[in-house]
Amino acid sequence: MDRFYIEQLTIIGVGLIGGSIAARLKREGAVGKVVGVGRSKKNITFAHQHGLIDEVAIDIQQGIERASLVVVAVPVKQVETILQEIKLSSNTELVLTDVGSTKGDFKKMVERVIPERVGFVVPGHPIAGSEKIGAQAADAELFEGKNVVLCPLEKTKNTSIDLVQRLWQSCGACVTKMSEQKHDKIFSAVSHLPHIVSYALVEMMNRREDTADLFDFAAGGFPDFSRIAGSSPEMWVDICRANRGAILEDVESFIRSLENIRELLISEDYEAIQNIFDAAAIARNNWALKQ
Amino acid sequence: MDRFYIEQLTIIGVGLIGGSIAARLKREGAVGKVVGVGRSKKNITFAHQHGLIDEVAIDIQQGIERASLVVVAVPVKQVETILQEIKLSSNTELVLTDVGSTKGDFKKMVERVIPERVGFVVPGHPIAGSEKIGAQAADAELFEGKNVVLCPLEKTKNTSIDLVQRLWQSCGACVTKMSEQKHDKIFSAVSHLPHIVSYALVEMMNRREDTADLFDFAAGGFPDFSRIAGSSPEMWVDICRANRGAILEDVESFIRSLENIRELLISEDYEAIQNIFDAAAIARNNWALKQ
Repeated sequence: MDRFYIEQLTIIGVGLIGGSIAARLKREGAVGKVVGVGRSKKNITFAHQHGLIDEVAIDIQQGIERASLVVVAVPVKQVETILQEIKLSSNTELVLTDVGSTKGDFKKMVERVIPERVGFVVPGHPIAGSEKIGAQAADAELFEGKNVVLCPLEKTKNTSIDLVQRLWQSCGACVTKMSEQKHDKIFSAVSHLPHIVSYALVEMMNRREDTADLFDFAAGGFPDFSRIAGSSPEMWVDICRANRGAILEDVESFIRSLENIRELLISEDYEAIQNIFDAAAIARNNWALKQ
Repeated sequence: MDRFYIEQLTIIGVGLIGGSIAARLKREGAVGKVVGVGRSKKNITFAHQHGLIDEVAIDIQQGIERASLVVVAVPVKQVETILQEIKLSSNTELVLTDVGSTKGDFKKMVERVIPERVGFVVPGHPIAGSEKIGAQAADAELFEGKNVVLCPLEKTKNTSIDLVQRLWQSCGACVTKMSEQKHDKIFSAVSHLPHIVSYALVEMMNRREDTADLFDFAAGGFPDFSRIAGSSPEMWVDICRANRGAILEDVESFIRSLENIRELLISEDYEAIQNIFDAAAIARNNWALKQ
């Protein structure tokens, strides 16, 4: 593998993810200069003062003018405006990647807003995070050993893919390429559906007449199980919107799973219930052993 | 509160729970002698050699002959046989408590098998545990600050309730009394339903064609969410059997919650989805602050 080195990396949104990329690549000596663009003056000033970025750009145009690569690491709602800005740039060879947790919606947006640039766009999703947010939470080790999924478009150039792949490898990540459909199906099942289920369970407890008793005695799995229901509702509504098709299929499929268990409870078929629990426990414990 | 002290405590089943009670009461100097009864010779020998118990009884009759209090801390399937043994004992003033996670079934069993002893029976449920099992996992601190629910029968004598309450307080626990119906409703919602949901989610992932991909990319909440799906299937099938009525209601109610979310996704009513997520996040985070 060629060592990753570029003269200028621009990061739009220097939060947990953007800041951690900056911290790692600077530590690796993999960039000449990191330029940051951000809406929160306090956050971007923190990033600058703590050496995550070398320069603060006054706007997107100035920020990307001389960049080889731009990482868009902002909440999904802000992405379209940023693509429209990028469209106007004279830097037509700029390679662009993002870090959003849904990829089908990003692909469509790219094809609609900047079809002339698709050769340089490499949609990405680092499977790493933390409950912390902002540049203050930046951590050069955040991606070490973690998966990053890239979902290149049909017309994305190999040179663009290669550049983004090497960026992530320099961050210590393992890169996998797949279609955006496959990505969105996988993450609907392993992440989006579990979040919806956790929210729905806690909300149901919260709606009951005996809700005070329930929370007083909430132990036996509740702390672990409900942790993800403490996540940002705005972000998860955005994910529901962005990946609605796959999520809807999984919600329906899960309703059928629960209906099956309901029938087994009604008919007192405890052997069949045990088979379900056994399959889950074996799968979960095998998975845990590999981590 | 009178200090708890009894001449002889007998523990049937010196595992995590039984062993931890023994460890704590001996440390507190709250018992003259702890006698242990157990089916696994290896486990009971370990408990004896490590001073958790002072004597190993050869059988239940010998074990409870001179005891003031007996704690039945065995898997639910073994409880009935033990009650039948206790029925035969000449020690008619023996106070009896258990540690099972469902209480309605235990109450019914007591009323059926030992109706003549109900005045001395105090059904209990310590809300504490660990993934570890056996006497080796015994921990004198296991119940410190934890809740213990007691569900006395109508005819249980106050002196019996008082004795068991003081036993648990000596173990550092906070004791709450409630009916067995209320107990089983609460724990169906906060513990039994979440376990079923976690098993069902993991089993659904395991059944899919793309299961290998799903487990490869299982992050973003999966580790926390699925931890309880690694629990003992046998134990959880027993709980389904023991608390079938309340669990069935909660499974049905949760299916309706998910059907509601499905409808909101179909109609793209993201505001209503956000309201559900908001209510859950606020409730969960408020709960977490109090822990």
